[in-house]
Amino acid sequence: MTNEIAEGQNRSSSMERLRKLRKSIAEKELDALLISQPENLRYLSGFTGSGWLLISKQNTILAVDFLYEEQAKIESPGFEIIRIKQELHGWLPGLVSDLGWHKLGFEANLVSYDSHNRLSAAITARQINLELVPAAGIVEQLRSIKGPEELVLITKAARLADAAFEQANKMIRPGVTEKEIAWEIETILRQKGSEGVPFEIIVASGPNAALPHARPTEKAIRSGEPVLIDMGARIDGYCSDLSRTLFLGRANKTFQEIYDVVLKAQASAIEGTTSEMTASQADRLARTVIDQAGYGDAFGHGLGHGVGLAVHEFPRLGLSSSDSLADGMVFTLEPGIYLAGQGGVRIEDMAVLENGRLRVLSKAEK
Amino acid sequence: MTNEIAEGQNRSSSMERLRKLRKSIAEKELDALLISQPENLRYLSGFTGSGWLLISKQNTILAVDFLYEEQAKIESPGFEIIRIKQELHGWLPGLVSDLGWHKLGFEANLVSYDSHNRLSAAITARQINLELVPAAGIVEQLRSIKGPEELVLITKAARLADAAFEQANKMIRPGVTEKEIAWEIETILRQKGSEGVPFEIIVASGPNAALPHARPTEKAIRSGEPVLIDMGARIDGYCSDLSRTLFLGRANKTFQEIYDVVLKAQASAIEGTTSEMTASQADRLARTVIDQAGYGDAFGHGLGHGVGLAVHEFPRLGLSSSDSLADGMVFTLEPGIYLAGQGGVRIEDMAVLENGRLRVLSKAEK
Repeated sequence: MTNEIAEGQNRSSSMERLRKLRKSIAEKELDALLISQPENLRYLSGFTGSGWLLISKQNTILAVDFLYEEQAKIESPGFEIIRIKQELHGWLPGLVSDLGWHKLGFEANLVSYDSHNRLSAAITARQINLELVPAAGIVEQLRSIKGPEELVLITKAARLADAAFEQANKMIRPGVTEKEIAWEIETILRQKGSEGVPFEIIVASGPNAALPHARPTEKAIRSGEPVLIDMGARIDGYCSDLSRTLFLGRANKTFQEIYDVVLKAQASAIEGTTSEMTASQADRLARTVIDQAGYGDAFGHGLGHGVGLAVHEFPRLGLSSSDSLADGMVFTLEPGIYLAGQGGVRIEDMAVLENGRLRVLSKAEK
Repeated sequence: MTNEIAEGQNRSSSMERLRKLRKSIAEKELDALLISQPENLRYLSGFTGSGWLLISKQNTILAVDFLYEEQAKIESPGFEIIRIKQELHGWLPGLVSDLGWHKLGFEANLVSYDSHNRLSAAITARQINLELVPAAGIVEQLRSIKGPEELVLITKAARLADAAFEQANKMIRPGVTEKEIAWEIETILRQKGSEGVPFEIIVASGPNAALPHARPTEKAIRSGEPVLIDMGARIDGYCSDLSRTLFLGRANKTFQEIYDVVLKAQASAIEGTTSEMTASQADRLARTVIDQAGYGDAFGHGLGHGVGLAVHEFPRLGLSSSDSLADGMVFTLEPGIYLAGQGGVRIEDMAVLENGRLRVLSKAEK
């Protein structure tokens, strides 16, 4: 694919995203939406720095300070770039007033109590007729359904994680430390083209594997104990997320059993999840298997989460999730069982919902 | 230093931090403070995961979900660890009511408009007599004055950045790409013991150096053009931050002049800054030099920022900063001049305010 074609595709997918967003803005009877969540900025404008995006029926304004002005011009050529010198409440009221907007949606899950208060006070002080309307998750909902150009990048990132896991797997032997394995994986990922790593790589062995978010330590790997590895790659902003648990030599009976339960729980979710389900129904497919095996209390987190420009995004698959599933969503399936002081097992794949069913993207050996 | 002594020192510095925080809480007539900012959590409790800390005159409670429960027990042995299953508004009102608190401070610069609203609604619905009091920056103010044990770690992180820069410097020659240099620096940092890198390393050459926050590209370095490098290390959570601009071969006349101006501006700030000054007065020391050389508009950011557990923290040194300086503060001095389309120069050192004057921590050659 030549750069011209890629850029043409980027432009057309950007136009399509803005079209959908404007539909949502109109449905909510807003004049415009104020956006600063970094992945939302990138999704809509291509801009990868810090700033504020204002989208109305007519306008696509990207407001940035000195630090990001040149970068914004390069990354977001179709957008009106304005340079700001103050905090939000300093520049926004005047601009909104000039544009004649009266209902402005804002990311209420992100804008702090303080920022909102200062902005409200500035609007009142300047006697501007502007209502600030909490509007969380609009762009995140759009982002949860992936376009074909996004699926290409996510698939590349998933392949890269698979390849790095399989290459690193060869150096894992008794005596190697968790930190050494984590650094080996990161080196492979970066050398194969990952843009950094989307989250700190987890290599947790023995009792450390009972901590779902363990950090790699100087502990050396021993035969027979579980080694839990959780890692991902990033390609053109898009993330992957992969977990495997392995044993050097023979696992004891408890961990043999646990491993089988987790694998069955994952298989149940992969086979049974459909795009007609809610996210909590999908979670239950895996949870039932673990509950019935008697390990329900040891599976204390959700089944998975959406993956895209962010490594954790919509939908959230868990017992109490109110999200619905739909074709085009990409998410993880990562049941786990953790026994404090002993260790844990987690197996995580990424999958995409297509024609109503899941297609697994991760290929690393289990 | 044995681990026992190190742990004893950590405990005593943790006690001292809690003592100071409780003094601030009492001065603000609060019953307790709710904290979730990650570096604030780590500073007060040693906990490096996600959760909520509640500090009152009597209590030190760390509320975490399943994912972090075991980690919290290990990292924060003196704290009461409670396991939460819901969002803030689900568990906080009941707990606060049981403890008999009536005025609870919260990090208003961090808690979102949505979270605050839900929490308020839950308090009203349960008819609990609790006032939520915006209280931003209390822990950040404490963190801005470094203790001796913190200065040891910051100095180590600064030395590591110096060493990585000087080692990487040897491989910089025409034809090497920005990305290759960035990866070489990161590899050296990590192999020398840095915990990841506190921010994405900047290697920006030629016109790219005009972007203060440039990302490394596939562009190869050419003779005569500026190469701006900005990077840091992290040791036990504490960061360093170092920028250098170098030229392969001979810089053209413009950049020779700009380099001298930036160096003089930095020297003026390093020599002139005292702990009696405000942060904006320190900024002016450097800015005046750049203004007088005719490049005022090309120095569009502040002189520097505090560095500690976060790579950007109090104080903020800039024209419009209202922060005051004080002994024990560690911050950067990083004037820069950026010419769109041509390139830029930034020179950044870290320094600590001691006995009223600055002592420079960075040693890398300029």
